[in-house]
Amino acid sequence: MLGARGRIGSEAVRAVEAAEDMELVAALGRGDALSAVTEAGAQVAVELTTPGSVMENLEFLVGHGVHAVVGTTGWNDERLATLRGWLDASPDTGVLIAPNFSIGAVLTMAFAQQAARYFESVEVVELHHPNKADAPSGTATRTAQLIAAARAEAGLAGQPDATATALDGARGADVDGVPVHAVRLRGLLAHQEVLFGGEGETLTVRHDSLHHSSFMPGVLLGARRVGSAPGLTFGLEHFLDLN
Amino acid sequence: MLGARGRIGSEAVRAVEAAEDMELVAALGRGDALSAVTEAGAQVAVELTTPGSVMENLEFLVGHGVHAVVGTTGWNDERLATLRGWLDASPDTGVLIAPNFSIGAVLTMAFAQQAARYFESVEVVELHHPNKADAPSGTATRTAQLIAAARAEAGLAGQPDATATALDGARGADVDGVPVHAVRLRGLLAHQEVLFGGEGETLTVRHDSLHHSSFMPGVLLGARRVGSAPGLTFGLEHFLDLN
Amino acid sequence: MLGARGRIGSEAVRAVEAAEDMELVAALGRGDALSAVTEAGAQVAVELTTPGSVMENLEFLVGHGVHAVVGTTGWNDERLATLRGWLDASPDTGVLIAPNFSIGAVLTMAFAQQAARYFESVEVVELHHPNKADAPSGTATRTAQLIAAARAEAGLAGQPDATATALDGARGADVDGVPVHAVRLRGLLAHQEVLFGGEGETLTVRHDSLHHSSFMPGVLLGARRVGSAPGLTFGLEHFLDLN
Amino acid sequence: MLGARGRIGSEAVRAVEAAEDMELVAALGRGDALSAVTEAGAQVAVELTTPGSVMENLEFLVGHGVHAVVGTTGWNDERLATLRGWLDASPDTGVLIAPNFSIGAVLTMAFAQQAARYFESVEVVELHHPNKADAPSGTATRTAQLIAAARAEAGLAGQPDATATALDGARGADVDGVPVHAVRLRGLLAHQEVLFGGEGETLTVRHDSLHHSSFMPGVLLGARRVGSAPGLTFGLEHFLDLN
Repeated sequence: MLGARGRIGSEAVRAVEAAEDMELVAALGRGDALSAVTEAGAQVAVELTTPGSVMENLEFLVGHGVHAVVGTTGWNDERLATLRGWLDASPDTGVLIAPNFSIGAVLTMAFAQQAARYFESVEVVELHHPNKADAPSGTATRTAQLIAAARAEAGLAGQPDATATALDGARGADVDGVPVHAVRLRGLLAHQEVLFGGEGETLTVRHDSLHHSSFMPGVLLGARRVGSAPGLTFGLEHFLDLN
Repeated sequence: MLGARGRIGSEAVRAVEAAEDMELVAALGRGDALSAVTEAGAQVAVELTTPGSVMENLEFLVGHGVHAVVGTTGWNDERLATLRGWLDASPDTGVLIAPNFSIGAVLTMAFAQQAARYFESVEVVELHHPNKADAPSGTATRTAQLIAAARAEAGLAGQPDATATALDGARGADVDGVPVHAVRLRGLLAHQEVLFGGEGETLTVRHDSLHHSSFMPGVLLGARRVGSAPGLTFGLEHFLDLN
Repeated sequence: MLGARGRIGSEAVRAVEAAEDMELVAALGRGDALSAVTEAGAQVAVELTTPGSVMENLEFLVGHGVHAVVGTTGWNDERLATLRGWLDASPDTGVLIAPNFSIGAVLTMAFAQQAARYFESVEVVELHHPNKADAPSGTATRTAQLIAAARAEAGLAGQPDATATALDGARGADVDGVPVHAVRLRGLLAHQEVLFGGEGETLTVRHDSLHHSSFMPGVLLGARRVGSAPGLTFGLEHFLDLN
Repeated sequence: MLGARGRIGSEAVRAVEAAEDMELVAALGRGDALSAVTEAGAQVAVELTTPGSVMENLEFLVGHGVHAVVGTTGWNDERLATLRGWLDASPDTGVLIAPNFSIGAVLTMAFAQQAARYFESVEVVELHHPNKADAPSGTATRTAQLIAAARAEAGLAGQPDATATALDGARGADVDGVPVHAVRLRGLLAHQEVLFGGEGETLTVRHDSLHHSSFMPGVLLGARRVGSAPGLTFGLEHFLDLN
């Protein structure tokens, strides 16, 4: 565990310790030497540090054949290319980078993509605590983009909407033709609804994240699978068995 | 029944006929003489015609001491003043004008007003079929205004919202400080959610209108009560026993 | 269209007439000669009759190389074997039998199966009008069975449930270890929620059928695809592109 | 604050400290002398201890004219009679006992009672974490009882339900004629839905408790109001302004 003393890292430590099929062999915080990872014989590292240290850590891990599950953010094309270079030189090593470890969030996006081509109408409503700085959430924007791409691929026309007079903002934000609404309420954590509508019926996929422990099952799932997926995997959805 | 051959009127005819405690004594359409109402001995008239004929009809009904339940729209201060004048001259007669006969919609507004003072956060999400011309719905706008008034009366401050960067429209329309979001989906009819949020909890009141027959119970309730409420009553909520 | 004068059949007639890529060439009711189908040059037949006539109709259709989309119920192993025999003798002909033509209902089941292996807890709540004779609905029972099978395949243990004292019925019906709850409310048509719960999060898939026209898109989709799917297809899900 | 070192008590300490219009003058735990309350000049005491010590504490508080807000459980007729005796001897002192301090839960019950007489159908669905020992929850049972009483008072007949064949448990537990369903899911805390159905429409009141801090606003509201409500008040609803 790298970043083991952060809020998320310390929860991940507990999650690994509680998993019957795993053993925590090293828990590193800021300033600890990376050599502890290899000395402890770690097979998989969970990287939950910062954009400032993630590259150095991954260079070491991949160079020593330690698989990695990465939750640290800040990825761009250049960083990914560098990482791919290291992986080319260590072809048996696997790295999973996941922008979202919540299995519920990942499934919501997967289902939204699958359903998108079958319904005339679709909108996204995300609901968060009022301390959130951005609206809509990154997850909601990404979900809407994936839906829009699936609709385009299926050749669907624009959505039906006879709105003639509207108050400014009433119909939400337009993300590639998909309306996205952001609700901010005290008491909430992170929630998202994708609403599909067709002739005489609606289909709703809703994800409620009620506690930040929600991403632990995804971290564990990643740690179990990354060893059999050499190279770079971007997105937890690639480790889910969706048919 | 006045306006008995319209879409709503013909359903109201069926609803009255099906009610065990009522008898339909006259059903008038365009061009029928109003005298049929008094000749039939009607105690209560249901007025479901048009703004062009409602005043003439009410002058006759009030003048003859027939109580009236009115669903026809187009009311303004001048018309209400005229009607009040007729009622002053016929002090035992009652008239109910209801912008919305759906008991569920009326209760939603009543509950929203009651809850408003107890929660930091509140937003309204209304969902309708995509052929609707206005956004948000009149009911949603009215609900938001009632909530805002209740918050002001209770001395509540503005809602918490740390949004720093937002896509245009994401945070909905601002109705007196209450965000209102309008969703349009094929398959829906008319739906509204009022979401309240406080420390560690949320309270949601949701009304789903799945068929336009939903306002019949309100028409019947109005017809049963209007005879014991002399003068003008505006809004079905005044006939509901809310404590 | 076979069974074109029934309630469902007459709606299917309108749906086909409204579809730009289809032409209705024959609409048969009880007593009409099947030869009208071939005389009209029909490529695909929609069979919406009764268990008493469906076999005779399909024997004729398959025998004449007319593809068929079948909504009629009453299938058992013997009938399916007979139908397969006819199809063996007409290897280019396709028949789709669908217990449920609602795309939303079919997707709900598909998503429930995909999500089942990733969550500790799962329950099904179905909600219908109060005139329904069976509880839970066939769709809810089938959904629970599919979930149970997916859990078993993934090696999941029983669901966590510390209930020690319960009122009879409170925890729902047990369908292969999945609790199923049936709600009956005036005003509803047919609705179903599948609720999954894991560490810190829940995922809900909800299907609302608000009008019986909801199965028309599925009939049309079946009619478009059945011609390129020789042999017997059982279940609309096989014609949906789920990845 | 009595019981200030318990899980709930320590949160209440923080809530009082954060309230601008209150001052925490004493925080007592097990073994601390009650005299500290009066020595500190406390006007209102919050009693969050155990059934074993609450009576002794209240005898002291009421005897010294200190108002009390009580969250401790274990009340029966005998204990209430004893407490009333103490209050008779100290007529300016107020005591609030609240089985549930969540404003959302209290409002849900109040709204359910108000709506009950206007809908043919009503059912309750409560959803909790899987470690809960009883099903349905006490709140859900109480809500159903209140609804049943309101229906009886309004002269409503039994609920429509044509169920002829049902799996055991599918239609929920019967609480005075109101079906109550209990869902248990990992990831949930405490949630309740009251669903009303009438001709063409449904009304849903839903309460989500996402964190046990949800009862703090109710504790503070009680502390603010108990001083002006001499005698015994049972239930936070009496301090809410519902019209």
